[in-house]
This record gives sequence, structure tokens and C-alpha cells, in this order.
Amino acid sequence: MDLDRSPLARPFPVALPVAGVTPRVARAGYKEWGRCDLTYIEVAPGTTVAGVFTRNVCCSSEVELGREQVRLGTARALVVNAGNSNAFTGYRGRAAVEGIMAQVAENLGCAPSDVFVSSTGVIGVPLPQDKAREGLAAAFTAAECSWEEAATTIGTTDTFAKGAVATAIVGGQEISLVGIVKGSGMIAPDMATMLGYVFTDAAVEPAFLQALLSAASDATFNCITVDSDTSTSDTVLAFATGQAGNTPLASIEDAGADAFAAALHDVCRQLAHLVVRDGEGAAKFIEVAVTGATSDDSARRIGLAVANSPLVKTAVAGGDANWGRVVMAVGKAGEPADRDKLSIGFGGTWAAREGQPVVDYDEAPVARHLAGDEVTIAVDLGLGEGRATVWTCDLTAGYIAINADYRS
Amino acid sequence: MDLDRSPLARPFPVALPVAGVTPRVARAGYKEWGRCDLTYIEVAPGTTVAGVFTRNVCCSSEVELGREQVRLGTARALVVNAGNSNAFTGYRGRAAVEGIMAQVAENLGCAPSDVFVSSTGVIGVPLPQDKAREGLAAAFTAAECSWEEAATTIGTTDTFAKGAVATAIVGGQEISLVGIVKGSGMIAPDMATMLGYVFTDAAVEPAFLQALLSAASDATFNCITVDSDTSTSDTVLAFATGQAGNTPLASIEDAGADAFAAALHDVCRQLAHLVVRDGEGAAKFIEVAVTGATSDDSARRIGLAVANSPLVKTAVAGGDANWGRVVMAVGKAGEPADRDKLSIGFGGTWAAREGQPVVDYDEAPVARHLAGDEVTIAVDLGLGEGRATVWTCDLTAGYIAINADYRS
Repeated sequence: MDLDRSPLARPFPVALPVAGVTPRVARAGYKEWGRCDLTYIEVAPGTTVAGVFTRNVCCSSEVELGREQVRLGTARALVVNAGNSNAFTGYRGRAAVEGIMAQVAENLGCAPSDVFVSSTGVIGVPLPQDKAREGLAAAFTAAECSWEEAATTIGTTDTFAKGAVATAIVGGQEISLVGIVKGSGMIAPDMATMLGYVFTDAAVEPAFLQALLSAASDATFNCITVDSDTSTSDTVLAFATGQAGNTPLASIEDAGADAFAAALHDVCRQLAHLVVRDGEGAAKFIEVAVTGATSDDSARRIGLAVANSPLVKTAVAGGDANWGRVVMAVGKAGEPADRDKLSIGFGGTWAAREGQPVVDYDEAPVARHLAGDEVTIAVDLGLGEGRATVWTCDLTAGYIAINADYRS
Repeated sequence: MDLDRSPLARPFPVALPVAGVTPRVARAGYKEWGRCDLTYIEVAPGTTVAGVFTRNVCCSSEVELGREQVRLGTARALVVNAGNSNAFTGYRGRAAVEGIMAQVAENLGCAPSDVFVSSTGVIGVPLPQDKAREGLAAAFTAAECSWEEAATTIGTTDTFAKGAVATAIVGGQEISLVGIVKGSGMIAPDMATMLGYVFTDAAVEPAFLQALLSAASDATFNCITVDSDTSTSDTVLAFATGQAGNTPLASIEDAGADAFAAALHDVCRQLAHLVVRDGEGAAKFIEVAVTGATSDDSARRIGLAVANSPLVKTAVAGGDANWGRVVMAVGKAGEPADRDKLSIGFGGTWAAREGQPVVDYDEAPVARHLAGDEVTIAVDLGLGEGRATVWTCDLTAGYIAINADYRS
């Protein structure tokens, strides 16, 4: 089935090569399709790596292995298989991943643990080892490809290629970051896997890179939701080749570390937003800004309760400024909230303040705001200083059509 | 907007009067509609009461007051307003409830705290006190009505009247139970309120009645979900008039107490199922049976994660035996689970065992099962003795149409 390009799609940015990173693509033929489906990205010796992974306890072998590998902190290559997620395939699935790691390690003369593997697509079918082997062999000798080609190749049911770029000055050197991401198209029986990768030529110690990536992910990838479901394969990896020549960053006190952190956060936020913009059936991009909570964590949980509420999401789809549904979602989050201190607004206009409808509430500007394709919902708890922003898309008949009416 | 009768609707049962309970209905005119919208049910002096209420922290004044009232354990009347939920109306909403309690108390010569009030419908508009007053006055002198009329009158966007009956022998006396429930139709800006009431002529001490109702609700009303959203007004009350003449039940050791508990559980389960059968857009009734969890609580949370998953619900809507989505939902529940011990089945056929697809899996009987309108999903964790069963409906384009395309 071919999906229409999302109405919320964005063009792929101008993304220049990152020193020490060589992306290539090939056809492994994991599915019957006339496209490249294996992405092979070599990174230079000395590259450091950090990663965050799904919290779904039924995770794939790729995730199990990746969690161990990032602790070592070094990387030489990334392999992404599209069309087969290799999830729920037991020891045979694990053997397929280890086979890929061994083949790349032999090609590069590195440790297998320096080879990161992700897979996305159909579940319950072990990744065919012969196809992986031949696809990899072809990738080793393929010409370097563009970032847009790599972003397209890691995709499955994505309706557009997603990338982001940023630069920063670190210790007098300009460093660059390029990120690509896939998600979150889902078609039975595929999974909603989100895979994101950020590459930079900056030099960053692995422990510090991990700290920065974890913090950035918490405020970006962990603040988006399409339908509250959590893939078993979600992975975000950051690779730092060090080719920019800066003194390796080891703490936020180092010169330029804050600029690098901001640039990494920026790339992660852009990528996270692009995933929402490709949410199934999405017609509106929704930002939920929560303030006045008892803590930032509490604010995030309240924001996600609003963003995950089918009643709120269908109301936005219908252009309905239904503040009562937002109040309901806040109340069910299980976080501190006081009905009589709660305020709800849309597009900068308060609809309810302190638990009651605003007396001279003018719905006209709110209706205009909700007719657009970028909707903001403000929730003020009136309790403390905690704040968070989360992003989602509306829930439309398109979501049902993609997930129920079609079978793969 | 008129909704079509749910394809999963059931006929109203033959429900005889319960000794000591007198239901009446009247027109308060809370909305512009040509139907009764105020239900007034008198219960005889000596009636005991128990209740369970929404955990949504942004609850209505009716719920706040009701929580206090059930602690006293006695009741003389129930008033249910349909068409206005009186939620998010601040002190004016609270005054309206207290006005109703005072008017009924004067009429019956009882304490205001013996008068229970529920309201369901539009939010943000204080319940009009004049309409309530005139409606109540009319109800005081109206003729006794049938249980089906009462069940119809408490409804809002329900597409059919919902009731359940049961009997038991308690201390040599036959006692009867009748329950009515409304929910969970929701139309903007109404809330998804579920209101359930059980009446019995048995004599039951209030503390014991509360213990039995809490236990029954946990295994029935708290094990159903339509869309994971939680109303701010959900209420279940049980009234025991004592007119059957049995020695009042005070503990599960008393003669007939287990029979009464089983009958109460049965009525609650029937009512809970009827709510699911009237879920918006529902075309299939889904039972999720979880076994082998580390505890019953854990099993219930896993069951609800499956039942609330939009991907699982759309798969069932599409007749797709997508066991991978069930595995995903189990994994995201945050409860103990081991991918390699997990088994998933549909309609009595295992699709996956111990984390892998069943080798000789025959999809034909499963496809036939999923083509019907009663679907069972089995989840075995393989870890312990914990078990729970939860119920939900599928997620269809009808849900979107009801909640997004229409405005009230």
C-alpha cells in the first residue's frame, strides 16, 4: 500500500557531509520492493557513541545488544535494515544480528562491538542472513550517498525523508551535526519503530555524549507521542567522529560544550517534530505547553496525558476548542492538580481560568486557530514552577484507515 | 445528533420492582429535548449505601459530596440529572447540588446527607437551579416508573437502555438485585460519564456493602475501557433496603453472604459489559484474558495496556490477528514480562508461544474468530499465577466520526 505524503511534511534540509562519516546504501531485498533497504554508515576510527533505547521490556535483540555496546563508548559502523524488524525471533534473530556485526568487523578490522545494528519492519520473521550478507557486501563497495538517500533508505512506511542539521562553535572550531530519523508509520503487522541517528564531527568523550543525548532525548523524543504505543525497537544513537579537531568535550564546563549541547538538542527536537509530522493520518501538529506544575516531570506526565487522550486528539481534528476534555485528561494523569486552579487555553487565548469558563470568552480567534494545521494547547496548573512541552498530532479517520482497513 | 443503536446492544432484561425502591422520572428540561431527564429514586428508611467514584482529581461537586456521604452509610434518595454534568462550575455548581439535597430532604423529612446526586452532560455550565427545583417537584408526585424508563432517563448519548438483574438466597430469603447504568457515549463537549446504580432488598451493613462493592467494581467497572479516558463524574452506588427481611449481612462468614457477593459481582459485570457494548463506534466486543503474571494487579495493568492500545484495537477492527501489536502493548505496560516466555492467542488458538510465532500456526480459525463480533485475546506471561480479565471494544472510524466530525 502506498501512503500519501503527509500534509505536514517538510522538505529535506541541505545536509553537507560530516567529516569522518560515510553513508552508503544497498539492496538486501528484505521485502519485495524495488528500493534500497540496507543502510551502511562507516564512522572513522576514534568515533565515540551514545544511545538511548526503548523502555519496552519486550525489546528486540538489536536493542539488547545496543544497550551493551554503548557502554563501551566506541563505534566504527552503523547498519540499518528496513523491511524486517527481526523482533520476536528468538535465538535465530540474535544470530542474524551477530552475523552482521562479525561481517562488518572483518571488513573494517574492528571489534564486533563497534558495529551497531538496527532493524525495522515486519516482526516474527528472523532477518534472512543470506540477504543481509549479500546486501552488506554490496554496501561495502557502493559509492557514498547523500544524507537524503540514507534517510529515505532507513524508512519503512514513512511518507517523507526526515533530516535535521545544526552547527556550533566549539573551542574556536565550527562543528556540524546531521541527524536522520524514521517513524512512525505503522502498518500491520509492522511496528511503530522510531530510529534516529545523529552524526557530528565534534570530539566528545562518550560519557559526556551519553549525558547530553539522554537529556536531549528526554526533552524531545520522549516528549512526542502519536498514539501512546511504544515500539519494541526504538533507538536513538549519536556518533561523534572528532574530525573537527576540537579538544574533546568532557563536561559542560568545557569551552563550547554548552553550544554543542544546544545544537544537539536542536537537532533532536527537529527530528522529533518530523516524526510527529509523519504520524499516521496526522492533519494537525499539536503542541501542549504545561506550566505551573509541581515539577518538570509532573508537567511532562500531564502533557503526555493530554497528548495521548483520544478525546482531546479527536476534538482538535474536528476543530473543536473542547477545554473540558483537556481538564479531564489533566485529571486522569494521576499528578498533583487542583480543579479550581486550572487554566486551559488554545492559541494564546484562555478558554477556562481557575476551573471555570472565562466569562467574556471569545471563541472566534480560538476557532480560527484550530482551523489551522499548527495547534497549541496551554495548560497552567497554578501550583508551582514545573513546566514541559510535548508534541503530538490529531487523531483522524486516516489513522483508523491505515491501521484497521488495510492488511499487509 | 442521533446515534444509531449499537450493533452490540442487548435487550433490557425483565426487571421486577425491588422492595423499598421507588423510581420516578420527570422533565427538568436541562436541554432542549422532548424527554425526561431527571430521575428520582426513593429508597425506604433503613437503606444502607456504598459507593465508588472516579479517581480523576478534577472531579465534580457531586463526586466530592458523594464521597463524604457514603461514609455515613445511609440513604433515602438518589437524583440523577441528565443533560448537564455540572462539572467545572465552581461554587455555583456546588450550590445547585446542595439545593437539590435540601429540597429532597425537606420532602422526605431526612438529612440532606441521605440524598445522593449525580449529573451527566454538558460541562462548564452550572446546573440551572430553577429547572432542577421544578423537575424535582414534578418527580415527587409522578407515578412509579419501570426500571427501563429509569435506565433510559439517566442516559445521555447512550444508544440503548442498560440493565441487569440477579437473585440469591440469603438466610433462607430470596433477595433480588437490579442494576442500571449509563455510558459511555461522548459528544463534544459532553464527558464520558459512567453512572451505575444497584438496588437490592437484602439487608447489608454499610461497611460490608462497601467492601463488596469495591471488590466487585475492581473486577468489573475498573476492568473495562473504551478509549483510556476517565470521566470526572464516574460513580457507582449500591443501595440495600433490607426489605427482604434477612438478618443483616456484616461479613463474608455470614450465611448467604457469599451468594449475595456473587450476585452483586454478577450484576456489576453485566452492567460493565453493557457499557463497553455501547462504546462509541464499537463494532466488536473484546475480552483480554491475562494469565501467568506475577500478580493479579500486574495482570490487570497488562490487560488494560492491551485493551487501551490503539494499534491493538484498530487491528481487531480490521479483523487482523496481529499478535505483534499485543506483544508491544504487553511490553509497554511497565510490568514484569519476559519476551521469550510470552504467549499470545486469539479465540482459543495460540499464534505465538514463548516469544516466537507458532510453527504450524493455522490462521484460518483465527481469521474466522476475528470476523465475528466477540473477540477474545489470551495473553500468558509464563511467570506466575496472576490473572485478570478486562473488556473493551474495537476502535473504528465511527469513534472518530462521533468525537471529531460532529459538534454539539
